[in-house]
Formats: sequence, C-alpha cells, structure tokens
Amino acid sequence: MTELSQPAPVISKEDYKERVRLLRAELLQLQHRIRERDKPVIIVIAGDDRSGRHETINALSKWMDPRFLSVNAYGPTQYDEDIRPFFWRFWRDLPGAGEVAVYLRDWTSTSIVQYLNGEISEKKLRKRETYIQNFEKKHTDDGALMIKCWLHITEPVLRKRVAEIRDTPYFDVKDELALKNYPEAMEAIQKTLDATSTPTNHWYVIDGSDAQLRNLEVGEIIKRKLQNWLDQTEQKAAEPDVQNGYRGERVVIDVPPEPEDARPDRGESKVKLKKLQTKLRKLMFEIRKHEIPVVMAFEGWDAAGKGGAIRRLVSSLDAGFYRIKPIAKPTEDEYAHNYMWRFWRDIPRNGQMTIYDRSWYGRVLVERVEGFAKDNEWQRAYKEINDFEEQLTIHNTIVLKFWINISKEEQLSRFEDREQTDYKKFKITEEDYRNRERWDDYVVAVEDMIERTSTEHAPWSVISTDFKDKARLEVLGIVVNAFKKKLKQLEKTTKSDGLSNSTE
Amino acid sequence: MTELSQPAPVISKEDYKERVRLLRAELLQLQHRIRERDKPVIIVIAGDDRSGRHETINALSKWMDPRFLSVNAYGPTQYDEDIRPFFWRFWRDLPGAGEVAVYLRDWTSTSIVQYLNGEISEKKLRKRETYIQNFEKKHTDDGALMIKCWLHITEPVLRKRVAEIRDTPYFDVKDELALKNYPEAMEAIQKTLDATSTPTNHWYVIDGSDAQLRNLEVGEIIKRKLQNWLDQTEQKAAEPDVQNGYRGERVVIDVPPEPEDARPDRGESKVKLKKLQTKLRKLMFEIRKHEIPVVMAFEGWDAAGKGGAIRRLVSSLDAGFYRIKPIAKPTEDEYAHNYMWRFWRDIPRNGQMTIYDRSWYGRVLVERVEGFAKDNEWQRAYKEINDFEEQLTIHNTIVLKFWINISKEEQLSRFEDREQTDYKKFKITEEDYRNRERWDDYVVAVEDMIERTSTEHAPWSVISTDFKDKARLEVLGIVVNAFKKKLKQLEKTTKSDGLSNSTE
Repeated sequence: MTELSQPAPVISKEDYKERVRLLRAELLQLQHRIRERDKPVIIVIAGDDRSGRHETINALSKWMDPRFLSVNAYGPTQYDEDIRPFFWRFWRDLPGAGEVAVYLRDWTSTSIVQYLNGEISEKKLRKRETYIQNFEKKHTDDGALMIKCWLHITEPVLRKRVAEIRDTPYFDVKDELALKNYPEAMEAIQKTLDATSTPTNHWYVIDGSDAQLRNLEVGEIIKRKLQNWLDQTEQKAAEPDVQNGYRGERVVIDVPPEPEDARPDRGESKVKLKKLQTKLRKLMFEIRKHEIPVVMAFEGWDAAGKGGAIRRLVSSLDAGFYRIKPIAKPTEDEYAHNYMWRFWRDIPRNGQMTIYDRSWYGRVLVERVEGFAKDNEWQRAYKEINDFEEQLTIHNTIVLKFWINISKEEQLSRFEDREQTDYKKFKITEEDYRNRERWDDYVVAVEDMIERTSTEHAPWSVISTDFKDKARLEVLGIVVNAFKKKLKQLEKTTKSDGLSNSTE
Repeated sequence: MTELSQPAPVISKEDYKERVRLLRAELLQLQHRIRERDKPVIIVIAGDDRSGRHETINALSKWMDPRFLSVNAYGPTQYDEDIRPFFWRFWRDLPGAGEVAVYLRDWTSTSIVQYLNGEISEKKLRKRETYIQNFEKKHTDDGALMIKCWLHITEPVLRKRVAEIRDTPYFDVKDELALKNYPEAMEAIQKTLDATSTPTNHWYVIDGSDAQLRNLEVGEIIKRKLQNWLDQTEQKAAEPDVQNGYRGERVVIDVPPEPEDARPDRGESKVKLKKLQTKLRKLMFEIRKHEIPVVMAFEGWDAAGKGGAIRRLVSSLDAGFYRIKPIAKPTEDEYAHNYMWRFWRDIPRNGQMTIYDRSWYGRVLVERVEGFAKDNEWQRAYKEINDFEEQLTIHNTIVLKFWINISKEEQLSRFEDREQTDYKKFKITEEDYRNRERWDDYVVAVEDMIERTSTEHAPWSVISTDFKDKARLEVLGIVVNAFKKKLKQLEKTTKSDGLSNSTE
C-alpha cells in the first residue's frame, strides 16, 4: 500500500487541459464499453476531511457521461438504515450488470468515522475490517470491478483549508475537531487502509492538496483499471476456497423410511400444536417489543412439507409481523446483480420477520446440482453465505435455517398422492420427477451444505421424519426455543449494561 | 354504498366450520389461478378502530396460502415516507402480475386518520378523495382487481370492546379518544367512503361485531370478486376518457430549419453558460437547505441533444444532489407492474433532484406510435400523468418537463455527422432511421402530449432550435427561473404563516 503521501508539484494550465481532453475522450469510450459488459463497476472515492472528495466526484461526473454514472452520496445514516444491518444500504444501491456506481462515504470510511466518533469500539472496527474484505471479495470474485481511492491531505494543508473557510457558511464545527484530532485520525485511517488493502482490492492513496492533480490522478487510475478489466475477455475464475469455510458435523440426509408404528397420534399432535402456537404468539409480542429482527430459511426435498410447516408456523402470528418470500428463478433484474442482492433487499427491519421459502442456499443446491453455477461460484458460496448470516446476527437478528427431510420412499408416495388429489394436482410436475432422479447428487449437496454452513450464530435444524405432524411440531418447537433463548440473553445484557438492544 | 350497518345474528359452530371449509378450498384454488394471471390483485381491509381488521387479515392468511399473499401493514409513517409524496409507499409495495397484496391502513383510512388527527384540513381531505379515485382507477383501468372492505362497529360494541381490554396491555389511550369522538369519526368516515365509492371501486361495508361472521363475510366477498375477475377471459377495455384530460395550447412541433445567421456567437454563449451555471449552483444550496425536491423529465427527437443539455445542466451541481435515470425498455419486473411504478420508485426525497432522461411520457410517444400500448391505454395516460405530476407538486416538488425540438433537416445532418465521428458512432443505429420514418406520427403524438399535459403545476418547456448552444442556455435559464420562483414563493409563505416547508 502507498504510504499517506506528501504534496506533489503542480501542473501547468496547458498540460492540465491537454491531459483532461485525452482522459475525457477515453473515459467516454470506456463507459460505452462497460454497458455491453455483464458485470458491474464499483468505484469508491473516500478520503480525509476536506480532502476534496466531493469536488473529485463532481469532476468525474463532468468528464464521464453522468447518465451512466450513479453516485451514492450518503449522509449520516437515516432511520431506515439504522434498523437494518450495516451493509444493507450498500447492497441496496449496488450497480447491476453494465452499470457504474460511485460510493462517497463507503463502508470503510463510514466505519472509520463511526470509530472516531466513539460509536463502535476498536475491537469492532477490527472485526468490521474482516467483513469489509469479505464484502469486497464477494463482488470481485463474482467478476465486478472495484476501484478504491483514498484522498489524503497533510496537516498544514488541512489547517490552511479550514482557515480559508472559517468565516464562510461552508465552515462546520467538525472542521475544528478534524484539525484537533488529526494525528489520531491519521493513525486510525492508516491502520484500516492497511487492513482492507488486499491484492485484488487495494487502496490507491492520492494526494488531495492540488485539486487539478488530484482529480486527474483519480481519473487516470479509473481509466487504467477500466481498460485492464475490459480487455480481459474471459473473467479469471476465482480460486475456490472451500477450505476456508466452516466445517461442522456431517449429518446423514439419505434416511430409510420411518416405521409406521412411529407415527404420532393425530389428536395428541393437534393439542401440542395448539399449545406451541399459543406460546409462539406470546413470544411474538416480546420479540416485537424488543425490536428483534428474525430471518428464517426453509429448504427441503420436493413434497417434504415446507409449505405446510410454514403455514402452521405463521397461523398464530399477526400478518403484520412477518413476510413470506417464495424464492423462484431469478428475474432479469436479479440476475444482473450479485446473487445475494435479492436476499439483502428483503431482510426484515427491527421487530419484523422474513421467512424465505427456499433461499440463498439455492446456490449450493439446485445451482450446483444442475450446473447453473460454475464450480468456483458454488464453492466459494459457503463462505459468502456464512458471512451474510454473520452480518445479520451482529445486527441482533435471530437466524434459523430448516432442512425438511423425508425418505426417498415417502417422497414417491407423496407424489402419487398429489396426483390423485384434485386440488393438489397443480403441485406436481414433470420437474419434480426429474429432480428425484438426481436424488443422490442432492444428498451430497445437502450434506456438504449442512457441514459447511452450520455455524454457531446460524445453525441448521434438520427435521428428519416421514410424518408431517411431527415435522411441524419440531419446527415450531425450535422457533419457540430460539425466541426464548434470545429474550433470555437480552434480559441478561439489559441487567449487566442497561442497554435493551445493541445494534452492533 | 351500503350504509354503516347494525349487528347481525350469530352463526352456529357447525355452520361456521362448514362454511370455512368450503371457502378455504375455493380460495386456495383461486390463488393458484391468480398466479397464472398477468395482472395483480389489491385487497384493502380497513375499518373503524377495534373493528377487528388485524384479526380478519390473520384469518385470511390462515385460509389462503400465506406464501402468495403479501400483507402491507403500515404503522405510522416512517421518516423515509414523510420525505416523499403521500402515495409513494403504496406504489412501492404494489403487487406485480399474478401477485396479491393486502393493505391494512391503506390510502383512504390513512387519509381519514390524518384528518381526524388534525394533520390535514377538511379541504385537503376532499381533494385527497379525488386523488384516491384517480389512484384506484389507474389500477383497475389497467386490469388489476381491487377489493375494498370497511369493517364497521356500532358505538355500544366499541364501548364493550374498550371496556374488555381496559386493564390489559392491549389498551391504548387512543381507545378512550375513539370512544369520545365516535359520532364525529363516523360522520367523517361515511362521507369519505361515499366519496371514494365508484362503480368499479366501491366499498363493501361489513359489520365487525361478530368475529366469525365478519371474517367469513370478507372471505366470501374476496372469493366472489376473484371468481368474477378470473372468469373474465378477456380484460374489458376501459373507456378512453381523453375528454377529461387537460386541454392546453397546441404548439407546433414540426418546424422549418433555423437560418444559419441566427446561430449564436460561440464565445458569447460560453460566457452566458458559465454565468448561469454559477447561479444555478448557488440556487442548489438554497433548494437543498429548504428541502425542496426537484423532478425533471427530458424528452425530444433522437439527436436533439438531450444528453448534452443534461450534462451542461448538472456540471455545476454536486453529484450528491441529483440522480439521472436513463429510461430504457422496461425490465421483466417493471413490465409486471403498472407502468407508472418504476417512475414512482425513483422520485427524489426532499432536497434532492431526479432527472429522467426520457420518462413516463414514453407511454404517449413511442408506445403510442409503435403500438406497444393499446389505444385506451395511451389515451387514458394523459389523465394519469397529470395526476402523477400533481401528486409531486402537492408534496412541494418542482416539476419541469422539456421537449427538445429540432427541424427534420437538422436531425438528418446530425445523424450524418455522428456516423462520421469516431467516438459518436455508437450513438447512431438503424433504429434511429426507422424512428425518423415515423416523423409525422411522432409530430402528432408530441403535439397531443403537450396540449394535454401542460398543466399549471407542471408546464412543458418546448426548446425549439437547431443550435445546441442556444438549447442548452434555454434549459439552464428555465431551471434557474423555476428555482428562483419556488424560493420566492417559499419566502412569502414563511413570512405569512411561519412554516418553512409545507409537505402537503
């Protein structure tokens, strides 16, 4: 990484004009080529206070075609952003295929500001750095281009700039503070820039003292990076790094049929179900009151009874508390973005619940088995998924994942039953039989998935039974326990530090 | 419309069970049929305080498949909603083709509540009723099904319910108030329900005193309406009602080439441009400070210079202040929604500006000329567009619309010029020539458009010149004047009533 640098010599007016003219023509051409590309470009323009970030972005908007350059210039977080995990807003504004987005106040600089303002501890900042690496890696592994520029100015330059605006409306009390805390801020910035500079996603540190040179340098870096990226005809496949993924226990998924005498009593199950539903309803009020978000993912064999389990689960809950998102084949829009984008969009705000009926695990199940995802794509997905779920849990979210499991024999008998029941006929198609032929491939995929993504913060619950009533009771029981556990934890934290809800 | 009604006789347990069983089987079947349909279903469950709206929606979620029923249960408005026009959140959550959305606290009941709380005047409520009619008509004209149920309870029933919960956590001070203001509230409700009951979108008023009967009745209304709607194989074409649209002046669009001696002096234009840009930049700070949102739509002939005009317009502005939305052919997702949906999504929050490079006017231009929209679709669009823009202006938005006009001869010479300039080649395609062949059809469409949508609150600016410099100056001049005018108005209001920003 470049060290935070010293003032550079200035440039003559003619030289500047000529370089801008050339740069501009090239940038416009490159922009046109990007639009044909099936991956996005993410540009970060961050920097020290008063280092000229806004001006540089304005210059870029002038040199490039602003119609195809979207600028995400966040101010302080808004209400809608505070009630969701940190990375939510950055995901929300992610460019799609062929699009360019510029981020001012990106994930890294926002983290540094939060640390300097005392909103997050140093320990949390260190953790955040890891999340940032993962976040960026996800996109570049996926073929996106990421360019990160940090504008830096020395203390005398900052002092001079603050003095110049002191008696104008542009002056802000924060300027005084920035001056006072300059050494401390630089130390923190240097540390975080080092930690978040990886071989693929390193920071370009640019001297911000001369406006023209600064803008030119940023423009030329962007030009070079764009050229290289566009000239790579074939995307280099990212190295699969499954070995980095978590390794939990291996659960046996391919089970023999359950003996008929194990079938639970119908009446008894009904009573138990009612009881659990009543409990759950009470817990819902508590969860809502404490503003805890809940995310559930349901996966399972065709005809395993996911729908039925979800219906029993929500039937005692208020319709305003939860949303069910059935996940089908991605739409055009979704396909143009990173595959996690659509799931980020629907994550619940505090005090609400989203139930995904099939989920992001499609990447390592159907997309793996059917070959819709390349090997390195589904292989690196384990780590990406663990990271995604960790982001949810550090925002205090309850994350529950269910694999609803039945025996192969039971599946066949349910298929046949569906074909014979009038109002269930629509539920069974040729595709179900085709999937069934790949049963063994799915078994391996499911076992791998559970092994690699059963993390401490977001464990899998494998519900393995051929009896629907039993499966439904187990799901409800697990949810009731998870809610209770969370509320108990909360009680403890409240007692010890007086806070009712720590949002990271 | 049904009068707010009296308690009905109760139902036996067996009858209830049997009716629910039948209803449920039918609803599930109907839900399956909806998913094949290319239009959405919008269900409103509104009602008096404590009339059981939540419970009815919970029952519906239980009877139907909750995975394909999304419930929009709004609480009080959130920050993100207050900084945008009233209808924004309802548009945002609009169901797409084949989807069903249930609205609790819909546009009508929210308006009544705002009125009863003194947040909007009676005059504004009357106006709102018209907007509501237009909003609903837009969707049903477009083929959507809308079902509106209002749950009503009599004063004694309300009194009883409040008494029952008085010593429980469910009790709210608002209950006391509801009881006190019962007669007044009923009068307001009756009036607004009458005003928003149209032949296509009338209110079903349902007695809410008995929970079982109430839920059944709502369920059965939904069933009947769904059946009728699904059985109509072909959508009835809505009557075109152009005659209801605004009629402004007719502007001549097909102009002769401008004489060469009218060409403005290059150097002079440059100086003027710089001056205007500096003025605009200063005004931008004021507009931002006063939290005024700005919406601009750019339309014009191919090669008329929309892009160049937009670039000159934004080049002095902060990239964080504006967003440019290039409008292309709708995506799959956009196509599945009402055609105004995607424009609503991108309207600016207070203090920001969205520039649409081509806009909702595509409906009455390319879609009309190329036959992508049916006759009744583009014909009723004039009124829908006027309504949309009015919604923006009552939220204090500056709305500016530009038609950039050139002569047919000038267009040809620009096409030829583009073909000969290396970095402009990509800007010219076969399609441009095809569009040019339909020049005369477009002339009629443009003239109709300007005549019917030049409203007082959102007038068209026709920039008619073959000289690019002149066009750019005119655009900038109009924007500068519009910003000034708005700020002056604001000053007056502030002086007279002490309010700095009236959001409707």
